[in-house]
Amino acid sequence: MKTLIKNGMIVTSSDRYEADILVENGKVVLIGDSIKDAASEVVDAKGMYVLPGMVDQHTHVESPFGGTITAPWHTESVAAALGGTTTIVDFALQSRGESLRAGVEQWKQRAAGRSAIDYGFHIGVTDLRQEVIEEIPALVEEGVSTLKLFMAYKGDLMVEDATLYQTLDRAKSVGALVMVHAENGAIIDLLQKKCLENGQTEPYYHAVSRPIEVETEATSRAISIAEVVGAPLFIVHVSGEGPAQRIREARAKGLPVFAETCPHYLLLTEEELKRPGFEGAKFVCSPPLREEKHHDALWKALQDDTLQSIGSDHCAFSFKGQKELGKDDFTKIPNGGNGIEHRFSLLYTYGVAEGRLSLEKSVELLATNPAKVMGLYPEKGTIAVGCDADLLIFDPEAESTIQFETSHQGIDYDMFEGFPLKGRVKDVFLRGKQIVKDGAYIGSLGDGRYQKRKPYGLCYK
Amino acid sequence: MKTLIKNGMIVTSSDRYEADILVENGKVVLIGDSIKDAASEVVDAKGMYVLPGMVDQHTHVESPFGGTITAPWHTESVAAALGGTTTIVDFALQSRGESLRAGVEQWKQRAAGRSAIDYGFHIGVTDLRQEVIEEIPALVEEGVSTLKLFMAYKGDLMVEDATLYQTLDRAKSVGALVMVHAENGAIIDLLQKKCLENGQTEPYYHAVSRPIEVETEATSRAISIAEVVGAPLFIVHVSGEGPAQRIREARAKGLPVFAETCPHYLLLTEEELKRPGFEGAKFVCSPPLREEKHHDALWKALQDDTLQSIGSDHCAFSFKGQKELGKDDFTKIPNGGNGIEHRFSLLYTYGVAEGRLSLEKSVELLATNPAKVMGLYPEKGTIAVGCDADLLIFDPEAESTIQFETSHQGIDYDMFEGFPLKGRVKDVFLRGKQIVKDGAYIGSLGDGRYQKRKPYGLCYK
Amino acid sequence: MKTLIKNGMIVTSSDRYEADILVENGKVVLIGDSIKDAASEVVDAKGMYVLPGMVDQHTHVESPFGGTITAPWHTESVAAALGGTTTIVDFALQSRGESLRAGVEQWKQRAAGRSAIDYGFHIGVTDLRQEVIEEIPALVEEGVSTLKLFMAYKGDLMVEDATLYQTLDRAKSVGALVMVHAENGAIIDLLQKKCLENGQTEPYYHAVSRPIEVETEATSRAISIAEVVGAPLFIVHVSGEGPAQRIREARAKGLPVFAETCPHYLLLTEEELKRPGFEGAKFVCSPPLREEKHHDALWKALQDDTLQSIGSDHCAFSFKGQKELGKDDFTKIPNGGNGIEHRFSLLYTYGVAEGRLSLEKSVELLATNPAKVMGLYPEKGTIAVGCDADLLIFDPEAESTIQFETSHQGIDYDMFEGFPLKGRVKDVFLRGKQIVKDGAYIGSLGDGRYQKRKPYGLCYK
Amino acid sequence: MKTLIKNGMIVTSSDRYEADILVENGKVVLIGDSIKDAASEVVDAKGMYVLPGMVDQHTHVESPFGGTITAPWHTESVAAALGGTTTIVDFALQSRGESLRAGVEQWKQRAAGRSAIDYGFHIGVTDLRQEVIEEIPALVEEGVSTLKLFMAYKGDLMVEDATLYQTLDRAKSVGALVMVHAENGAIIDLLQKKCLENGQTEPYYHAVSRPIEVETEATSRAISIAEVVGAPLFIVHVSGEGPAQRIREARAKGLPVFAETCPHYLLLTEEELKRPGFEGAKFVCSPPLREEKHHDALWKALQDDTLQSIGSDHCAFSFKGQKELGKDDFTKIPNGGNGIEHRFSLLYTYGVAEGRLSLEKSVELLATNPAKVMGLYPEKGTIAVGCDADLLIFDPEAESTIQFETSHQGIDYDMFEGFPLKGRVKDVFLRGKQIVKDGAYIGSLGDGRYQKRKPYGLCYK
Repeated sequence: MKTLIKNGMIVTSSDRYEADILVENGKVVLIGDSIKDAASEVVDAKGMYVLPGMVDQHTHVESPFGGTITAPWHTESVAAALGGTTTIVDFALQSRGESLRAGVEQWKQRAAGRSAIDYGFHIGVTDLRQEVIEEIPALVEEGVSTLKLFMAYKGDLMVEDATLYQTLDRAKSVGALVMVHAENGAIIDLLQKKCLENGQTEPYYHAVSRPIEVETEATSRAISIAEVVGAPLFIVHVSGEGPAQRIREARAKGLPVFAETCPHYLLLTEEELKRPGFEGAKFVCSPPLREEKHHDALWKALQDDTLQSIGSDHCAFSFKGQKELGKDDFTKIPNGGNGIEHRFSLLYTYGVAEGRLSLEKSVELLATNPAKVMGLYPEKGTIAVGCDADLLIFDPEAESTIQFETSHQGIDYDMFEGFPLKGRVKDVFLRGKQIVKDGAYIGSLGDGRYQKRKPYGLCYK
Repeated sequence: MKTLIKNGMIVTSSDRYEADILVENGKVVLIGDSIKDAASEVVDAKGMYVLPGMVDQHTHVESPFGGTITAPWHTESVAAALGGTTTIVDFALQSRGESLRAGVEQWKQRAAGRSAIDYGFHIGVTDLRQEVIEEIPALVEEGVSTLKLFMAYKGDLMVEDATLYQTLDRAKSVGALVMVHAENGAIIDLLQKKCLENGQTEPYYHAVSRPIEVETEATSRAISIAEVVGAPLFIVHVSGEGPAQRIREARAKGLPVFAETCPHYLLLTEEELKRPGFEGAKFVCSPPLREEKHHDALWKALQDDTLQSIGSDHCAFSFKGQKELGKDDFTKIPNGGNGIEHRFSLLYTYGVAEGRLSLEKSVELLATNPAKVMGLYPEKGTIAVGCDADLLIFDPEAESTIQFETSHQGIDYDMFEGFPLKGRVKDVFLRGKQIVKDGAYIGSLGDGRYQKRKPYGLCYK
Repeated sequence: MKTLIKNGMIVTSSDRYEADILVENGKVVLIGDSIKDAASEVVDAKGMYVLPGMVDQHTHVESPFGGTITAPWHTESVAAALGGTTTIVDFALQSRGESLRAGVEQWKQRAAGRSAIDYGFHIGVTDLRQEVIEEIPALVEEGVSTLKLFMAYKGDLMVEDATLYQTLDRAKSVGALVMVHAENGAIIDLLQKKCLENGQTEPYYHAVSRPIEVETEATSRAISIAEVVGAPLFIVHVSGEGPAQRIREARAKGLPVFAETCPHYLLLTEEELKRPGFEGAKFVCSPPLREEKHHDALWKALQDDTLQSIGSDHCAFSFKGQKELGKDDFTKIPNGGNGIEHRFSLLYTYGVAEGRLSLEKSVELLATNPAKVMGLYPEKGTIAVGCDADLLIFDPEAESTIQFETSHQGIDYDMFEGFPLKGRVKDVFLRGKQIVKDGAYIGSLGDGRYQKRKPYGLCYK
Repeated sequence: MKTLIKNGMIVTSSDRYEADILVENGKVVLIGDSIKDAASEVVDAKGMYVLPGMVDQHTHVESPFGGTITAPWHTESVAAALGGTTTIVDFALQSRGESLRAGVEQWKQRAAGRSAIDYGFHIGVTDLRQEVIEEIPALVEEGVSTLKLFMAYKGDLMVEDATLYQTLDRAKSVGALVMVHAENGAIIDLLQKKCLENGQTEPYYHAVSRPIEVETEATSRAISIAEVVGAPLFIVHVSGEGPAQRIREARAKGLPVFAETCPHYLLLTEEELKRPGFEGAKFVCSPPLREEKHHDALWKALQDDTLQSIGSDHCAFSFKGQKELGKDDFTKIPNGGNGIEHRFSLLYTYGVAEGRLSLEKSVELLATNPAKVMGLYPEKGTIAVGCDADLLIFDPEAESTIQFETSHQGIDYDMFEGFPLKGRVKDVFLRGKQIVKDGAYIGSLGDGRYQKRKPYGLCYK
């Protein structure tokens, strides 16, 4: 079975050119001028951009958190597909007392046969006993080449500095990359208690109890510890200027420090948390949304390569029944928002169309760099001969507005409700199979396959 | 006439994959897995890298300077070709009292029919009368989309701040990019006189009279003036930490400031200027070579995207008869060194093979970014369907040593004499025509064509 | 004649203690607990602060500028006295074609017998011929140990970089300190012309045509040139964050760079320039007033010792007949504002009383450091045995409001009109003679004496 | 009983003048020109500097540590006196499970009647239970207005971030100032174990296991936590560039962060730790000695007010029997060196005489600022009417060399052995009583009195 995509404007992280693409056996096999292949199904992409399928390195699908669980694979993976994302790297979590492998297995089982798109897993380390350290090499062998540690969530996910050091040290020896959620959980814990003691229970106090200084601090700490170890480091969801500046300084020193931000830190502010009727809870995520001045700081950090990628940190809870758990106490609001569906369209609209980033740079931030840093390249993240035919045909002329009613994420609201969008994800191919056609999902759950990811440094150079 | 390059490992600034390339009418028309085309001449690139022809944005070929003239097109363009460079952007110069166009025409005439590779021209502005300002739009139309101003060489090429401002202002309106040689010429002039008054006439005083502070200063000044105008800026030949840091800070502020360094600032130090027997004169260039600590600062500035390209600043004078003009007075030594031939091999050896930069990043720094920033993309600077078939087949396994005797530049020494090299430029194609075969030049002078370059912003995003 | 000041709280830049002060022959001769001296006139300072007479290092009294002249010695020196300032260092100016000495002599003659307070002179260098350079040693001998250069006012006062270098070089050799007005005059000149061409003639365009980038640039340039020379440097009237940051970085590198800001940059914004009815002209000074965010940056720069002093830059023109010269063209508005009278009270109110600076720090910024850096110490700038009995008795409890009608400066408005003030200058002594009593001037014009100032480094360590 | 000190050159942190000082009842009562007082004992200080008695805010006298104890009050206080130090603030330590008060009481008892000079105590918090927090207000009342927390020494003195936050929060409310030893103890613990596992047991591995990154990190963390609390912070013994830069940035942001360095970080390097025969152990202190490049960084940080004081961190163990405890394991070497005796002379020699700091600045760093920041001012730290007559008569002409044999500290070596010294501490007065005469100690143990210190902010402004 072959497919020929004709006349599109192919855009990768470095190039932009009009050509035809021939797909065979799920792979791109030929790129050329006026390819003729009678045996193929032909898709005309005249006037369209043909982009690599997007890679989202930061999702939490069907993940237990605080006594409830995020939206499931069968909705979220379809939403991702409709948004042009063909691969996600989801966060599996170790349970206390359990092995890392058990966490990965649990997540694999949940995804198996229920995902519209390809997927891999990070493993979140929460309980680093000696035997757990010893699991790391085998996990890397099996394609789980990234570990995540939480410096926040004291008493739950938070790890001590010694754990961070030891994980970095062991990970380095086998090419695993350590990712950190950088907020000082011990200080947040005290600030939360102080708020609650003062009767400050509303969603806005979520932001008050997590000031950016605790993120700047933890970012700085993680960088210093990685520097001592001599290991690479990935900082997730950078929310503003202080942590971005620390990362910039580390990179200027030549340290292999990588980082992402997320659409909501670029586009939303902490003012949302003040919405009446507990609606602010819809915007409770960690780190919290910040003051508006940080938007500009983050766009600049994307432009000057301080931040190399944008993940969605999609961690979707419904307002009813889930966010409401924190009605009387903001610390009980499940942390997380949505973004898996419109990540690319938001960036196209507010980044590319507004002149902040080129389309090439957007492909780099949302597809190529995530694929490279996460060990999915060259199969994923670009359009080149030999790569997986994960392709997105994007119509730059269409316009729409984000509305919960027409979104596909499995929750009851959308953080970006009412945001106008430029362009439209028209068609999506996953390893050559068309799964979105003219904006409608036409694939099958189970199309998605588990991706073994390569160790650090084999893809990103 | 078609050529098929088979089995090579294609490397662009973002991708690396094994594929065949079909070239027709000087263009890349097909890239694919196991291409069969009976009508083609076949080149086997098994085990080789296939790279875009390199672009050198900073050369001074057959250029009058201080009463003498640099090495000519028929030697330097061949040397470039043998080193894998298929396009240069050379610096034409306005003469005082003359038009910009007259400068460009003079350079065009010298190059016509005598260049082994493609070429374009920047125009160096030295005398900005009102009618000269008015020439800028027409020059951009004709493909001279970059202007260069000298903040150094007082009494000769140096322009005042007002000229810099006005040029930036006019250039901005028509998409021309302004490049600056950033050293404070007025201060250098005083320091030179002071040295000479003290009887300090040897080559080393060239470095003494041009301390890095005057480069840091002028870099900072040019950035501020461009910031006031709201224009993009390109800083040539950054030689060390101070100026690099100012550029880093400007980029962190979101300013469109671009910059290059050169191989000699990465690999040689001011100690060379102390060589006995006036041999130090061979290393007299401006800015001067610096202390060794700056090497590390510049490699880091390449890594963190503070510097986006590496030009050779090839400006070759022989020792005999040319450098010797300054035997009794270092200010009379023609300024300049060589680099057009081994620029890529030096970067491959000391950047890629030593683990400082990936091969992809090297392609970006030496081909893709120069092509994009200089308005030569997408014809030049990458390998993609539709681009010029400027291709370099590189054998990574070969080893050699730079020796004047086996170099091809038209002067009587080589600044990098004795430097071991990894890898070898095996074959080179210019718009589909093979001009280097197994390391030997097989082209004709006159193969090279003048390139009309696009305005700023049409290529680099 | 002896005076005994009893029971006051003496405050110097480092100390605060209750004691009596015995003054004899114009000098402080004894400081002690319960001094008894029958032969003395006794002043009771119970509940009052006893401070050193303030030193204002930046005034322009009776100075020709743009075809008119600033307010004269007999008014401004009295206003200064009433505000607690007992010494000023005024800016004499060289005329083009004339000697430095001629400038100093002209200023000396104007001040002679007409000043209520002590005074010295800087000399503004505008025309640095070789014979002018040779004047510097003799001027330093005569107590003119500071030279000022203007990087602004193109075609008038502006000097070239070479002049700056040469002045720094010669000054260094004889212990003269070079002061610079750091704005890029060449760029301002172009921006002014652009505004006028666009019909933008109102006072606000004064600010538009002097953006802070041109001040940051010139500050950076002056620092780099002084760094090359190895000379100390003093930056006058720093107006905001950019230049302050460059000074901070220079000092962190160990460079002997000093700087001042002025009350108006701490307390007023460019919004004043938009006042209707040409009233904005009252606020036209150079550098211009800035956006409000710079206030905080400057207070912090005072706190962390980036800026070591506060001068008034008093340069007072009346609105009628003087500021009005620029009615149709903002470039013709005489540049300058007032501040000689309320400099200390403004700092006390908005610095000390609002908790930004201690009273000791204010004494340091307004008296001790100016005296030390300007070579007036130990006679001026502190209260210690042997120093001149220049004393200010300050009542911290009084309150008032600045009103033009009750001010004493010789112009027809006050930039700080309506500013509430805390505290009151009650009594002032000049070399032991009381010249202000209970807020009223009781001295004689001619009390003030010319002060020979010491070379750089003899006072400030 | 009165004393008249005649003809000396009095130097304070801001002033320098020749005058006589009359001392009565332990206080300075009169400073003046040619004081005559028949009833007084007269000391002629012609040609001498008369300085405030130095204040050392960082000592560990007779302090248990690692199973042994530092040199005792009766030797160390005499050594301090002979070096010109008249007040120390020593570190009392809470024992785990005990109250803060118990720690203070224990130290008070050890000092009582056995100190040659005045003394106060900080209290080191190691075990912050709720009832311990509640002790803080009462301790401040009793003059223990500074608390110290250790971020190093895991499993022993180290406190968690939550403890640091809570201490800062409570301390702030009652005007106590929190001091931190900023090194990341958790990482050091791992690095130490790694060294020992590798058989790296020699003293040099003390430095290897405490790289400056862990100090930079902890400094950054402490600053961020204090920033969140809104409390002032004091960083002890800053050892090099990284931490100094973080403090500089904090102060530039307007944060009330204070810091000290110590003589050994300015004058000794980690090379000392490599001395053969286990002699390196003599130089084992924490943070460790650093590379030489940090010396320059620290001198600059003193010059630009990034660091406001120099404490000795005197913590003296003998080589025999004490340092030897770590013969087979560097982690068992008692941490600490000496400095209480020659702190001022070292600074005079290597700071003042070499032109790095003025004598006034040295007085500020070693006497005035320590007195002010530690709440001992105005009784201590300056020479002014009403202050304690703690006076040091210093002969600037004498020269000597530090030799263990002629030193007075109660240990068997001196870290600064062989260092040439300029100047000599000739006479010392403690509250008017002469305790050192012509370089010999003539006081009595028990002359020293406990000093109740004032809360933060009452002295330092």
